[in-house]
Amino acid sequence: MKATSIDHICLAVKNLEQAKKIYEDTLGLELAQEYVAESEKIKVARYYLGDLALELMEATSPDGDVAKFIEKRGEGVFLISYRTDDVEKGLKELKNKGKKLIDDTPRELFGNRYAFIMPPTETCGVLTEILDGTYTNEKD
Amino acid sequence: MKATSIDHICLAVKNLEQAKKIYEDTLGLELAQEYVAESEKIKVARYYLGDLALELMEATSPDGDVAKFIEKRGEGVFLISYRTDDVEKGLKELKNKGKKLIDDTPRELFGNRYAFIMPPTETCGVLTEILDGTYTNEKD
Repeated sequence: MKATSIDHICLAVKNLEQAKKIYEDTLGLELAQEYVAESEKIKVARYYLGDLALELMEATSPDGDVAKFIEKRGEGVFLISYRTDDVEKGLKELKNKGKKLIDDTPRELFGNRYAFIMPPTETCGVLTEILDGTYTNEKD
Repeated sequence: MKATSIDHICLAVKNLEQAKKIYEDTLGLELAQEYVAESEKIKVARYYLGDLALELMEATSPDGDVAKFIEKRGEGVFLISYRTDDVEKGLKELKNKGKKLIDDTPRELFGNRYAFIMPPTETCGVLTEILDGTYTNEKD
């Protein structure tokens, strides 16, 4: 498997409104999208830097992964998501190498395949996700 | 000021050899460069994902910034560096907005200008750097 580029980076933040202000005011980023993901217990502000998305994420419940990350380590980069040639092939290759993965098979959203592969404990503090290279960000 | 893309991301790691193995073995990244930066008390492995560099950094002394980051928060993303139109203009604009900056004027390396602008405490856990858009990575 070969990661070819970074699709998105997620930053766990304590207060989304304050974080938005910082990133918009300091780096001049323009808000592209804002949404709540109930299943993941987060609310999210998404920005684009070229074809890379930067997401600011605030926990909506203390038992979600983002809340737990902040409780343990403070604010910071929670996840990096890499584009790869083929998620399914990549997962098989990693399994054959004897890697313990979070997802054995790809998840799917709007026809796009992705998988969480390694928890922060195994990739130097950052949850690692892979996507199909053809993955299309929802930009509306 | 407007950040237009991410130039590089630095990951503070406890053991560079182990971290290299993880990122090369799991994500198929190819080592582009390895160096020691005595002044910053780090040794570094650099990888490219398109035009974005991912740097793994191990502290070479317990009193450097990377060592302190790991001591306080564990391994993780230590710095994100953004390309901007003009670092000097950007710094002036931020000062006029009343922002407290790490660098008031650009630093220079191999003719490239860059500046550290905000410490992790003010940008949700990540040290923030800006570069001139024309900044060229040393790829030899």
